[in-house]
Amino acid sequence: MRSPVQEYLDRLVEQIRPHDQGTNYQAVPSAASMDPSLFGLALTTVEGHCYAAGDADHTFSLQSISKAFTYGMALEDLGPERVQEKIDVEPSGDPFNEISLQAGTGRPDNPMINAGAIATTSLIKGRGGRDRIGRIVNTFSDAAGRELKVSESVFKAEDRSGHRNRALAWLLRSFGILETDPEPSVQDYFRQCSILVTAKDLSMMAATLANQGVNPATGERVFAPRVVRWVLSVMSTCGMYDDAGTWAIEIGLPAKSGVGGGLLVVVPGQMGVGVFSPPLDDHGTSVRGSLAIAQIAQDFGLHYGDVPPLGRSTVRARYDLSEAPSSVPRSVEALQVLEKYGHECRIIEVGGDIGFAEAETLTRAALELDESVRTLVVDVRKVDDFGKAAARLLTQVVRGFLTAGRNLILLDDDEALTRSLLAHAAESEDGPLPDPLPETSVWPSSGPTPEESPAAVDAHTQDSAVYDLAPSEPQLTDEVAADDEPQFRLFLSRSLALEWIEQRLLAGHAPELVPTGNQEPTLSPLLERLSEEDAHTLAAFMEPRSYRAGQVIRRTGQPFGGIYFITSGQVELMGQGSGGRRYRQAYLSPGMIFGEIALGQAGRQLTTVRAVGPVTTRVLTAQVISALEESDPQLAIKLWSALARDAYTSVEQMSRESGARYE
Amino acid sequence: MRSPVQEYLDRLVEQIRPHDQGTNYQAVPSAASMDPSLFGLALTTVEGHCYAAGDADHTFSLQSISKAFTYGMALEDLGPERVQEKIDVEPSGDPFNEISLQAGTGRPDNPMINAGAIATTSLIKGRGGRDRIGRIVNTFSDAAGRELKVSESVFKAEDRSGHRNRALAWLLRSFGILETDPEPSVQDYFRQCSILVTAKDLSMMAATLANQGVNPATGERVFAPRVVRWVLSVMSTCGMYDDAGTWAIEIGLPAKSGVGGGLLVVVPGQMGVGVFSPPLDDHGTSVRGSLAIAQIAQDFGLHYGDVPPLGRSTVRARYDLSEAPSSVPRSVEALQVLEKYGHECRIIEVGGDIGFAEAETLTRAALELDESVRTLVVDVRKVDDFGKAAARLLTQVVRGFLTAGRNLILLDDDEALTRSLLAHAAESEDGPLPDPLPETSVWPSSGPTPEESPAAVDAHTQDSAVYDLAPSEPQLTDEVAADDEPQFRLFLSRSLALEWIEQRLLAGHAPELVPTGNQEPTLSPLLERLSEEDAHTLAAFMEPRSYRAGQVIRRTGQPFGGIYFITSGQVELMGQGSGGRRYRQAYLSPGMIFGEIALGQAGRQLTTVRAVGPVTTRVLTAQVISALEESDPQLAIKLWSALARDAYTSVEQMSRESGARYE
Repeated sequence: MRSPVQEYLDRLVEQIRPHDQGTNYQAVPSAASMDPSLFGLALTTVEGHCYAAGDADHTFSLQSISKAFTYGMALEDLGPERVQEKIDVEPSGDPFNEISLQAGTGRPDNPMINAGAIATTSLIKGRGGRDRIGRIVNTFSDAAGRELKVSESVFKAEDRSGHRNRALAWLLRSFGILETDPEPSVQDYFRQCSILVTAKDLSMMAATLANQGVNPATGERVFAPRVVRWVLSVMSTCGMYDDAGTWAIEIGLPAKSGVGGGLLVVVPGQMGVGVFSPPLDDHGTSVRGSLAIAQIAQDFGLHYGDVPPLGRSTVRARYDLSEAPSSVPRSVEALQVLEKYGHECRIIEVGGDIGFAEAETLTRAALELDESVRTLVVDVRKVDDFGKAAARLLTQVVRGFLTAGRNLILLDDDEALTRSLLAHAAESEDGPLPDPLPETSVWPSSGPTPEESPAAVDAHTQDSAVYDLAPSEPQLTDEVAADDEPQFRLFLSRSLALEWIEQRLLAGHAPELVPTGNQEPTLSPLLERLSEEDAHTLAAFMEPRSYRAGQVIRRTGQPFGGIYFITSGQVELMGQGSGGRRYRQAYLSPGMIFGEIALGQAGRQLTTVRAVGPVTTRVLTAQVISALEESDPQLAIKLWSALARDAYTSVEQMSRESGARYE
Repeated sequence: MRSPVQEYLDRLVEQIRPHDQGTNYQAVPSAASMDPSLFGLALTTVEGHCYAAGDADHTFSLQSISKAFTYGMALEDLGPERVQEKIDVEPSGDPFNEISLQAGTGRPDNPMINAGAIATTSLIKGRGGRDRIGRIVNTFSDAAGRELKVSESVFKAEDRSGHRNRALAWLLRSFGILETDPEPSVQDYFRQCSILVTAKDLSMMAATLANQGVNPATGERVFAPRVVRWVLSVMSTCGMYDDAGTWAIEIGLPAKSGVGGGLLVVVPGQMGVGVFSPPLDDHGTSVRGSLAIAQIAQDFGLHYGDVPPLGRSTVRARYDLSEAPSSVPRSVEALQVLEKYGHECRIIEVGGDIGFAEAETLTRAALELDESVRTLVVDVRKVDDFGKAAARLLTQVVRGFLTAGRNLILLDDDEALTRSLLAHAAESEDGPLPDPLPETSVWPSSGPTPEESPAAVDAHTQDSAVYDLAPSEPQLTDEVAADDEPQFRLFLSRSLALEWIEQRLLAGHAPELVPTGNQEPTLSPLLERLSEEDAHTLAAFMEPRSYRAGQVIRRTGQPFGGIYFITSGQVELMGQGSGGRRYRQAYLSPGMIFGEIALGQAGRQLTTVRAVGPVTTRVLTAQVISALEESDPQLAIKLWSALARDAYTSVEQMSRESGARYE
């Protein structure tokens, strides 16, 4: 199967090639004598993938397309203020070769007309061992991603016939816009116009501008983003000379044409397009080039005015903690407290691109919360892109919440939005935000250290040295539950965020129910369903095992090896993503169990379990369970039904979460 | 807590108010005598929410801002071609009151200079019982969302002092641009300039343009989207007169200023901004207005050149069917077949906004698939927005897959992208795509009809009449498994899509394993773990129950009532989302069980279960299970451990799915 993009371009070349209006550029013999049926088209995405059709490898001279790039160079060298002293940025509504010098000052209207372009070239100086034209060729080559060259024959023809340009240069000299002998600038201007390129080169040069100044194939930065924005703005209003207005309406993309038959078009953030066909219209633009671009812009909806309507929805879900609590197993009393006060924590999930309108919507959602909501969790894990508006408005929402004594939690798995908030706040006059401590354990590390308890270690997992995960984040040692200050926090995972909030809710409303760092297996929610006697009987069958910080306890793929009750410390579950990439699925804390999922269909560990700090466990092994089924079937029934209920509780919680998130 | 947007605007008004440069408009006494310290600012989002600060309720005359809206009216009335015969769209680089008529034709350069605006007004005719100015005031009022009025005193002043505009009108008449006596057009032009508005009105008028022509507060359509695009393009290049280039670079937003002190700025797709402050700069633009807009554009990153880089990632996940199969319980043999051939089905999950570059990335991902992949599932449920490029390129991907004898499945829960593909294909020269049948049951409806089997009905669910769900989609009666043609299909849910694909995989590689419409409970995967004898013993304890199409079998909130084995037909599980909204969670088919989740912590049904067509079940009630624990503990152990394993299999599958989707 061929690429639809390729097919599209091939078909377009076929459709447009028969259009034979226009006349080749006459001043340069090699251009004048070019086959007028030549037509090449290339498109390079900001990922650097290039598609080409027709005569996309045929070389021709850059001509006026060079003006956009020398303008970029002058802006890089001198900054916009100094450039603007010499060359304005106003559309003149005039043809390319018009005099268009402003009355009094002699300042050219813009850098895209010849007078402005010659003045621009004069501003570029040799540097770093390269003369001016050497630097120009070098920069253009960086943008094209291959070494470009000046055609001596084209240069000579331009030089011979360039009377009007020399006149312009002397006029500029008379006004003091050119400060020295105009001839070297004029000659280099002719040379930059004589650089040979192909439609493919043009598309890559355009893609470099589309990609905020970085060549997408080589990764090399050619222009700073602010220079690119400036150049594209001027191209938008002045790039197509006296055709700029029609172009803005019909095509709506920054573009630059050259009498060599080239046309360069930038689709910011998306791609660059290069077209080549020698016959020109009255504006000096390639006839087939205009037709091709108009068609592409229409077919793919590329006009800058084709703004999509507001994202499907910024706020994807809103729910209370009580609707979808954490998966931490808790006593019935604790669950009742959380059910009763869960409405004090509200979760708002947002997604898509967050521009001004979307940030405003989110801000309003936060502001409209009932007074009884003390903690807002903003889940931004589904956000694709965000801009300055998001940083600015959300920073103020954080401040507002803290001032009102409320907590604000960001659930931000790549931390991008959080970092942007912090950066914005640091520079704002209201001062920095408190540091939203990185996600980490909310449990005090009260387990025994390896030194204190050099106990039995799971035989399967001795070889933890081969394990390739990065070290865990450090454990928090502060007692979050004791802290009453309003908090601004960042969490990378939903489970830890909710666990943290529940701890605080319990601490506030029923401090006696806050779990401590250690937990006997008989108190674990799994065995809580059994009578105290039964729980103790089962506990007596358990084998104690301890682990050092970082040690792997269970590894993905191992068969069922027993049910592990965490009595102190914390473990992390590492899942295996597509392509074998590991990711952190959850943290488990005292009272929770692991190893039991291996009872499922696969019959083996789906996750690797690793000790975050020192960890102690009690293990009900597979052998013990088997023996129990024989010796005490009624207790075995109770164990199995407790396990079944526990598993269905997990299923239930997953369903509740997806239900709560359904809006 | 106050809104950060409000705070921002208040602070901005404070910061900018001290700037006292500029001079009030002198031609109208009421403007000349206005307090020069007046300064109002308003911002209306495309959701219609309005923020205002300073003197945002102070009225002033629209003046040249009116030109953008009469231009829109002329475009609506006559179409762009006929308007462009009279008025060009090229930036003139001239001040507002410049003559700027094109040599020979006398056509004004654009509709934003006075000559062009007078010509524009002349094109608008009375209609529907309203005279020209009546229609103008009416349309402007629709855009502002309140009734606007012409100020007679401003009009009289304009009329008295408008010599230059009369001269322009007579010049236009001499060229035949005005076809009749110019005086009525000039007078209506003066009247449209004399319409009184506030900064709030301006922001709503701007928001109407930002919202593709629909007033976001009233919902009324004022202009067609193509007219809005045209008007905004002309505003971008010509709206700020001889300051257009600088404006394009520094602010990069379509805008229109008026000498009455107003400034209207459009942020397409986001919001409208209106500013008012009487003192004007040399270009006739409000000094404080320019400052405020420059600050807002910078602070919120609104410049049209501030394009975000490529979305975080278009392709969110790629995985094989074997990595995350459907949750349909299957025999060990069937699972082995699916494991072996699962790589023939590849799932690509995409998200974010799909513009050209993103659609190209997805296209390439599809094209680069190994030949052995026979079915591609494109999961677009996380796509926010998509444009023409997505429709065009994906349509071709579908065609390419079908031509190559491969299947293409769209997982598209709101059908938006699918509908766009179908619409695009229908208009393309390659002709329409095959109809991707809507999602529905893939099971033949072979269960008994209610007439055939008027069996026992669950006592709890007799009152199904009060049930408020919409009727289910009709059941498919074709035998998908028998069909060997390459398929283009739409599914709304992942589970049904995967079930359908698995059926085809089984039919292709092991037709004897394709489940039939009926299934004995002893053959269900739950009891498959037990010996045949044990399974038959349990089956003998089960109670048969039948249900009519549409009947509710279990309702959310009911306590555990037993484990239901589906022996024929299909049921749907309806979850309850946030705010009580119901949504379809899954379909269950013969061999699957329901009711068991009520064994979890909540101890009650989380979903409502409804028969899609006629359904028969066998039920292991809670009483029977209790009795069994007493009478045959070993069998009870086997049942409970089977249930536990089944539940852990669900947990395992949910984890595998999230793992597979982690890239």
